[in-house]
Amino acid sequence: MTNYDPFFSRAAATMRESAIRQMGTVLSQAQDMISFAPGYPAEDQFPWIALTDIARELLDGHDGSVLQYGPTRGYRPLREATVDLMRTRGIASSADRVVITTGSQQGLDLVARVLLDPGDVVLMELPSYTGAITAFRNVGAALVGVRQDSDGVDLDHLEQVTRTLRADGRRVKCLYLVPNFQNPTGLLLSLPKRLAILEWAEKRDVLIVEDDPYRDVYFPDVTKESETRPLAADDRSGRVVYLSSFSKTLAPGFRVGWASAAPAVSTKIELAKQAEDLCTGALDQRVVYEACKRGLLETHVPKLRAHYQKKRDTMAAAIGRHLKDEVIQVAPRGGFFLWVALTGGLTSAAVMPIAQARGVIYVDGSAFFVDGTGHEFMRLSFSAPSPERIEEGVRRLAAAIHEAALVRT
Amino acid sequence: MTNYDPFFSRAAATMRESAIRQMGTVLSQAQDMISFAPGYPAEDQFPWIALTDIARELLDGHDGSVLQYGPTRGYRPLREATVDLMRTRGIASSADRVVITTGSQQGLDLVARVLLDPGDVVLMELPSYTGAITAFRNVGAALVGVRQDSDGVDLDHLEQVTRTLRADGRRVKCLYLVPNFQNPTGLLLSLPKRLAILEWAEKRDVLIVEDDPYRDVYFPDVTKESETRPLAADDRSGRVVYLSSFSKTLAPGFRVGWASAAPAVSTKIELAKQAEDLCTGALDQRVVYEACKRGLLETHVPKLRAHYQKKRDTMAAAIGRHLKDEVIQVAPRGGFFLWVALTGGLTSAAVMPIAQARGVIYVDGSAFFVDGTGHEFMRLSFSAPSPERIEEGVRRLAAAIHEAALVRT
Repeated sequence: MTNYDPFFSRAAATMRESAIRQMGTVLSQAQDMISFAPGYPAEDQFPWIALTDIARELLDGHDGSVLQYGPTRGYRPLREATVDLMRTRGIASSADRVVITTGSQQGLDLVARVLLDPGDVVLMELPSYTGAITAFRNVGAALVGVRQDSDGVDLDHLEQVTRTLRADGRRVKCLYLVPNFQNPTGLLLSLPKRLAILEWAEKRDVLIVEDDPYRDVYFPDVTKESETRPLAADDRSGRVVYLSSFSKTLAPGFRVGWASAAPAVSTKIELAKQAEDLCTGALDQRVVYEACKRGLLETHVPKLRAHYQKKRDTMAAAIGRHLKDEVIQVAPRGGFFLWVALTGGLTSAAVMPIAQARGVIYVDGSAFFVDGTGHEFMRLSFSAPSPERIEEGVRRLAAAIHEAALVRT
Repeated sequence: MTNYDPFFSRAAATMRESAIRQMGTVLSQAQDMISFAPGYPAEDQFPWIALTDIARELLDGHDGSVLQYGPTRGYRPLREATVDLMRTRGIASSADRVVITTGSQQGLDLVARVLLDPGDVVLMELPSYTGAITAFRNVGAALVGVRQDSDGVDLDHLEQVTRTLRADGRRVKCLYLVPNFQNPTGLLLSLPKRLAILEWAEKRDVLIVEDDPYRDVYFPDVTKESETRPLAADDRSGRVVYLSSFSKTLAPGFRVGWASAAPAVSTKIELAKQAEDLCTGALDQRVVYEACKRGLLETHVPKLRAHYQKKRDTMAAAIGRHLKDEVIQVAPRGGFFLWVALTGGLTSAAVMPIAQARGVIYVDGSAFFVDGTGHEFMRLSFSAPSPERIEEGVRRLAAAIHEAALVRT
């Protein structure tokens, strides 16, 4: 048989399975496993009836383009709908700045291909979303970590890291941020910091990749909508490439996201997409567009906020009851995740096999750190399981952590 | 404003719009334009009623995974269905060798990322599919042309080119082939040549990327099904990465294709896909799977063969009537395209503006040649327009060619 090793590209030789997707594989093979691992939205919250109506109308055959190849940039009315949506977030974009992407993940991948050569530096929060880490690594970028405070990026460390890199002659091209309910920490970047980062980017001549899939899923009890204002809203000089998605507000199975950037950048993104998949699914785009046009999001999203806020309550309370001394939890202000740190020197990896055996999985926090640290953290997703399963899952997790602590001592 | 030029990657700096997609833009902006440009399937042939039934049943909410994130490799029953489909083509694959891709174009892009480093050589037929050319170029591969005979690749030239490259110390990694009804020529690679190419690949330690989207759309009047046997069917040592798609047999708007390769290779393809779009659309995959399961393809595809064969007849006859002396046409044995060469020294580019002004577009043949030649060729797609529009389009094209010839003399 053929030996493939000499055939693989340098990128392929170093590709690894993401920790999140690995957990997906574990999940699909297990029975009665409670998953706090992938950040799946709650399926019982998908607006099934409305979507069925839309699909039936679209597929009646009166408009053949519903199942045809479409423009690489995306279905124009949908691009315009994303412009309207961005306007509600404070961003002044336009259809010629928007490219519809096959999920927000494709947006990250396209940005990576368009902006990064091997060795180029991307600054990443410690911790950062694994999907971004992988997309940037796959083009050979060098990822350098920046610490967080409780209101997001540590600005002093950001400046210090940048200076050191510059002094070493390194090319710092981008800062990657999830400003709203960051994956994995659930943190909200404060408004003053957002403005300070824009200023920093201008001064240091760096682009900002703003990844904003969770913006609409803020928790009204602790977060005001005005606090979610994207950096792109105050970007006067075209420093920000803004990415968002319908995966958390409508359904991820449609794989519809978008990128908004200066025309020169969005044109390159479009060209890269052309070779990557020609166009995003036509039916998917049309369904999402109809959902926008019919005002489905306006009625649906507030229900989602209440739904996920309640699940956060359930998980936070269960952790408070069962793991009061064993973990420190960060209270998320929106999104899908609860970020916890194990106390007493336990590592997430040590707990993992015991937790799996007890029927609960999560993502090892170290997967989100580009500097090889973070072994004491766990990302717990509360979005998909029912409140009963969250309760039971935390019980199992607590038992696993107690067992791991016993083994250790 | 920001100057983006210093930010673009080397790949982005050289990205260009494909000739086919450019024509798509022209088309979307014009009125009463007859398009022989993009190879769009006929929308009136999509099985609308069956697909509506399937979508309605899938969206009734009983199975939440229909709109959820799914495994990167694809929906397992669909992977198994592609294995069954490949079996009818003579290929013994298995679900662990298959990755569902977001259209066959993503398959090409993933293969490029997994196998090719800048400077690696891919051998491409003269002419070759532009989407493959772009995907390979975007990773910096060096594309070297190999001539064609009337039954596909010129084997002597293939060997000669390979030897020369090897003598120059170049790394020849792959040969890219569309064996069945090649895009753009419509040629069918002869069976003896397929076996000879497999032997050559083994001897020269080269992989074969076999791109097979048109296999099912053979024209029964000139082609036997047995003549379409893929190279992958006789691949004993895992030399072939096989790509195919449901875009031509069901509908391209679903963006569902697949790759089948040795497990070591398909694992890398899966990892690359993970960062590229996480997974292919869930609803799309489920609809396509149901179409397979319900036997829709078996009843539908023979009708498509008859449909496209008749359109080929219409176009070939119209060209025979209106352009007997002005072009030489290659009789396609399947697929969507008629490949013509202008006689008398005219170039496709010279005819283009006149044709557009007269309301007909096509793709300039030179876009398919990696060696900068082919300016006398045109690719005419007969798949989408009605017979009446094909007739009228050839009339307009003939008038344009006659006018271009007059201008020239």
